[in-house]
Amino acid sequence: MAKLGVAVVGVGTMGKQHASNLRRLIPEARLVAVVDADLKRAEQVAAELEIEHAFNTVEAVAERKDVQAIVVVTPAKFHGAAMKVCAQAVKDIFCEKPFTLALEEADELLDVTEKAGVRVQVGHVRRYDPPNVKAKKRIEAGEIGEPVIFKSLARDPAPPPVSYMASGVNGMFFQDSTIHEFDLGRWLMNDEISEIHAYGAVLVFPEIAQFNDIDTALLNMRFSRGTLGAVENYMQSGYGYDIRTEIVGSKGTIITGYLQQTAELVLTAAGAKTDIVDHFLARFAQGYLDEMRDFVQTILADRAPKVDAFDGRQSVAVAAAAERSYREGRAVQVQNRTRSSRAA
Amino acid sequence: MAKLGVAVVGVGTMGKQHASNLRRLIPEARLVAVVDADLKRAEQVAAELEIEHAFNTVEAVAERKDVQAIVVVTPAKFHGAAMKVCAQAVKDIFCEKPFTLALEEADELLDVTEKAGVRVQVGHVRRYDPPNVKAKKRIEAGEIGEPVIFKSLARDPAPPPVSYMASGVNGMFFQDSTIHEFDLGRWLMNDEISEIHAYGAVLVFPEIAQFNDIDTALLNMRFSRGTLGAVENYMQSGYGYDIRTEIVGSKGTIITGYLQQTAELVLTAAGAKTDIVDHFLARFAQGYLDEMRDFVQTILADRAPKVDAFDGRQSVAVAAAAERSYREGRAVQVQNRTRSSRAA
Amino acid sequence: MAKLGVAVVGVGTMGKQHASNLRRLIPEARLVAVVDADLKRAEQVAAELEIEHAFNTVEAVAERKDVQAIVVVTPAKFHGAAMKVCAQAVKDIFCEKPFTLALEEADELLDVTEKAGVRVQVGHVRRYDPPNVKAKKRIEAGEIGEPVIFKSLARDPAPPPVSYMASGVNGMFFQDSTIHEFDLGRWLMNDEISEIHAYGAVLVFPEIAQFNDIDTALLNMRFSRGTLGAVENYMQSGYGYDIRTEIVGSKGTIITGYLQQTAELVLTAAGAKTDIVDHFLARFAQGYLDEMRDFVQTILADRAPKVDAFDGRQSVAVAAAAERSYREGRAVQVQNRTRSSRAA
Amino acid sequence: MAKLGVAVVGVGTMGKQHASNLRRLIPEARLVAVVDADLKRAEQVAAELEIEHAFNTVEAVAERKDVQAIVVVTPAKFHGAAMKVCAQAVKDIFCEKPFTLALEEADELLDVTEKAGVRVQVGHVRRYDPPNVKAKKRIEAGEIGEPVIFKSLARDPAPPPVSYMASGVNGMFFQDSTIHEFDLGRWLMNDEISEIHAYGAVLVFPEIAQFNDIDTALLNMRFSRGTLGAVENYMQSGYGYDIRTEIVGSKGTIITGYLQQTAELVLTAAGAKTDIVDHFLARFAQGYLDEMRDFVQTILADRAPKVDAFDGRQSVAVAAAAERSYREGRAVQVQNRTRSSRAA
Repeated sequence: MAKLGVAVVGVGTMGKQHASNLRRLIPEARLVAVVDADLKRAEQVAAELEIEHAFNTVEAVAERKDVQAIVVVTPAKFHGAAMKVCAQAVKDIFCEKPFTLALEEADELLDVTEKAGVRVQVGHVRRYDPPNVKAKKRIEAGEIGEPVIFKSLARDPAPPPVSYMASGVNGMFFQDSTIHEFDLGRWLMNDEISEIHAYGAVLVFPEIAQFNDIDTALLNMRFSRGTLGAVENYMQSGYGYDIRTEIVGSKGTIITGYLQQTAELVLTAAGAKTDIVDHFLARFAQGYLDEMRDFVQTILADRAPKVDAFDGRQSVAVAAAAERSYREGRAVQVQNRTRSSRAA
Repeated sequence: MAKLGVAVVGVGTMGKQHASNLRRLIPEARLVAVVDADLKRAEQVAAELEIEHAFNTVEAVAERKDVQAIVVVTPAKFHGAAMKVCAQAVKDIFCEKPFTLALEEADELLDVTEKAGVRVQVGHVRRYDPPNVKAKKRIEAGEIGEPVIFKSLARDPAPPPVSYMASGVNGMFFQDSTIHEFDLGRWLMNDEISEIHAYGAVLVFPEIAQFNDIDTALLNMRFSRGTLGAVENYMQSGYGYDIRTEIVGSKGTIITGYLQQTAELVLTAAGAKTDIVDHFLARFAQGYLDEMRDFVQTILADRAPKVDAFDGRQSVAVAAAAERSYREGRAVQVQNRTRSSRAA
Repeated sequence: MAKLGVAVVGVGTMGKQHASNLRRLIPEARLVAVVDADLKRAEQVAAELEIEHAFNTVEAVAERKDVQAIVVVTPAKFHGAAMKVCAQAVKDIFCEKPFTLALEEADELLDVTEKAGVRVQVGHVRRYDPPNVKAKKRIEAGEIGEPVIFKSLARDPAPPPVSYMASGVNGMFFQDSTIHEFDLGRWLMNDEISEIHAYGAVLVFPEIAQFNDIDTALLNMRFSRGTLGAVENYMQSGYGYDIRTEIVGSKGTIITGYLQQTAELVLTAAGAKTDIVDHFLARFAQGYLDEMRDFVQTILADRAPKVDAFDGRQSVAVAAAAERSYREGRAVQVQNRTRSSRAA
Repeated sequence: MAKLGVAVVGVGTMGKQHASNLRRLIPEARLVAVVDADLKRAEQVAAELEIEHAFNTVEAVAERKDVQAIVVVTPAKFHGAAMKVCAQAVKDIFCEKPFTLALEEADELLDVTEKAGVRVQVGHVRRYDPPNVKAKKRIEAGEIGEPVIFKSLARDPAPPPVSYMASGVNGMFFQDSTIHEFDLGRWLMNDEISEIHAYGAVLVFPEIAQFNDIDTALLNMRFSRGTLGAVENYMQSGYGYDIRTEIVGSKGTIITGYLQQTAELVLTAAGAKTDIVDHFLARFAQGYLDEMRDFVQTILADRAPKVDAFDGRQSVAVAAAAERSYREGRAVQVQNRTRSSRAA
């Protein structure tokens, strides 16, 4: 078996997880190098994962012949620059979500990567979360009749450090966080979101106001075929990492997601108690592995990725519309594109 | 103990339940008579409940000296007329939700009943549902910090018969059904809903279009202190009667409601299976009893009702704003009133 | 409809519940009188339930013509004496479990009541608990194949007051408490328990040793057709009233029972928390009502009771065998009788 | 870091899982070789895991200098022979449960390995199952007061193939399967099982009778300090792989285990449905990894294993007593040994 030579660019929490999965659990891949703007960090991860190469530029891996695919896990504002280097070097790309933070850049990158003829998979991990995978199959099999409402909520345990906010761009809540739900809705409803109405507020994390951002959002949306959707995104659950989705159909409903992390129920005079999922790496461990394995197998098999640059771009467009709706206090049409025949 | 003489006006499914609770389970009350436009039905219920009197007009009970309080459970469009008769006769009133179907009428009735000096309790039963009662206490005790998001969903098992739709007024989904969630949100958030955005659609029950009505609604709302709310209301779950509420706070969340009706889990090759709550009388049996008992005790104790005409009126105003939002495709301000000192 | 005249003998916690159900919720019955050795208590309950008569002897109701059936809820050691009075007066009997505390007395009473031609229903309420009712139907329908293991556990929140122990007979744990599970096993497995092995211990309530009794028991049993059963009974859960049953079949398992009392889930940094059922009157409210209604309807319809003196006697025999097994440290055969044709 | 050279002997389902964990997920180990009586299978696994060596005798790895520890996952009846080779070659041992199938052999091996000065960890994976790990800590912290009852059940989805039965020794149900619960009980109750009473039966898998074996067992046990235990073991749940444990204390109870595999709830007219765990590799994936990692780290750190040959031997003694109890129809004392000071 010829292994796929892969490099991971950006080895913070998420990038390191991808690198570890590639190194340990996806035998079809060979992790050639890790890259980080912070070379020390790259070297440390390389040592820990027992691989040879650590670099601090995308170019350093883009020019290598033993690297066929590049996994981009930089801060979102650098996704575009990194992908352009990859495209120029004709390397296939896995890009962590969001595809980009701005719609114009998403359009540009969609064109650039199409022209370069490189494959792009975007890291919308929800599509690989096993309960969602099962739900999708049930919907397609008609088990809940016609799907008519998509609902999803995402609650982080606590706001990110102010430093994380400072490293991003201002006002990126919808683009950086809620975007997960937009892609999930598009996929499960097998439809485009055509209109969105967003309420946002700073309710629990006043420090975020300096970044022109919000900590709480409720969004309602209309899909192009007339069905409806509702999304909640909240930065400070106070209890854990809570992701739940419902697809309501004409004959039934599917609920995915869970709260309990450890299969232990404690019964005392204080009541019945379980713990709660505490981190996205725990919640989506299987999804992260499955999406990366699928990426590697997709490239090796010369197939089209299941969630590609077009999908990435469309969700960026929804996020942009959400942002505008929140700012302008009115429902906003999403600037959807049609999938080009080349991308299909 | 002097018992409270009560008559129930309207003994369809809901009215009969109230009458039965008054007759059987609330010893502080004496059910004097039941009334129904259909005298046969009134007589049948009177026989079944073993009480003496059955009439077919509100006036027949309003003029009785042995009736101190009247429970109005007519079709919603007749609430106003019935309450006016009660007010004129200076009888205290329990009015099933919705208070009215139109805001102007709600305002009028609020004034009429205040002037007449009669007490009015509106049947927003959710406030008496034991999990909601507990949730309210926890919120007040600060167990979840500051409440910042109110969420609620209500799904009926199946659309009502077309005859029920025909007996109402056109386009009454928000006023007749979603209004439960509006009152619940006002109460749990201890705040008024100031603005609302509603999406509505006919997605599963095409017959409803002839009544200018919808079967599916998603609503987002803003409370006057800046917190947010989201409500779903759906007519055809296909699986049962599903009512769930979440109050999300700065330190935690409370989820109320349940799906499983019978404490039986069946494990076979087909998976793990339970049944699902099938009817609102089953789901809210305790709440219906508790609200009626509270009404009786409130009147006997000469107290102010916990959910009164003002509350009824405010929720009608939210429903009116929701209706307008849905029709006009934009967020709409709620025409809230301030509670008069007399009503407090 | 001719109502069934009923008297309740013994109006402690359980007897008062039965009386209340008869008075309020079973219109086919007329509660004529309540009886208690403590006449004050009888009078108080009569006043509370708004009925005319209160007495302090069984004879006082047994001789009344307007009483057709007597509900015996005295302390278990007086069941026999009370039932003999009823039998002599040819009154039908509902006897709270256990039928008796001793096997010889059970045999005698079975004969006495059969000879007197009075109907006897024994208060094995588990058979009327809705999940168990459903489970029984599923088993009969073959949904879990052949039932092969019966399992049940019963945990009280805390030991009874020492005064309760002092009012009973010594060493009555199996006869007074575990007997619920014996009847349930017989019914769900549709078979007799033929052999039993019991471990017992004083582990949490040392005061009980003075009554030659135990607070903890684990029992294994063999049914006559070779299937197996396991029962746990424990006096001090520390968290609530916990009753759970499993019937394991060749194709599946049914689990009945539940822990959560209020449909409220609280999510905070301390984890996910619910409350727990706290009392047998809450846990079996529906069962108590359904069994009494069935008793009344059974007598009115001149049918054989679903759980009768023979059933009561057989479970007493199992309890006696359990007691002996525990005392002698060996498995013991149950002294089962065969149902006489008359009783069928 | 010096890695621990490890060989895995026996690469059926379980052995392959251990080998895969060592190769992929435990960087402190270097998987040097796999061994199987079926050399083809060994070679296939070696290829799949990308390691160099495949052999068909224990001796082939026992004599290698680059192998410091050997993981024995042969059929249970060959554990003894394999461990003797390891002991002679002074290699540390991880032995899959059961330690042995016969008590005499267990005693001999305990002595042999102690004399050889090799470490032995026995694969009682339950101790590494995360909910059990948490439960153990809570018990030690006193969260449920004094533990007084240990309960556990283990249900396989379906009987093993007759060929598996034929490859074992006759009548090995308690020794091969129930032994998991014996070790778990000893550990969670921090006590030895002193007496056991077992019922067994052939109820669903008649083919097993030819191996003088059973498919269903219920066992009650007494621990040396007087507390009690109850275990169920069943071969044919018909619905999945079901492992649940309860530790009942004087102040509360802990329940570990779970049924639902995928976090997906499907609501339709047929009720509320989830899937069920289907395989022990899924149920204990984390436990298998954690126990092997702990073994590797234990050897590297020159520590005593957490679950050692003495533990293995004690559980074999309980299984032997269970077997005798079942055969002789009476409670049987367990032939416990006292832990030698050397082994501590």
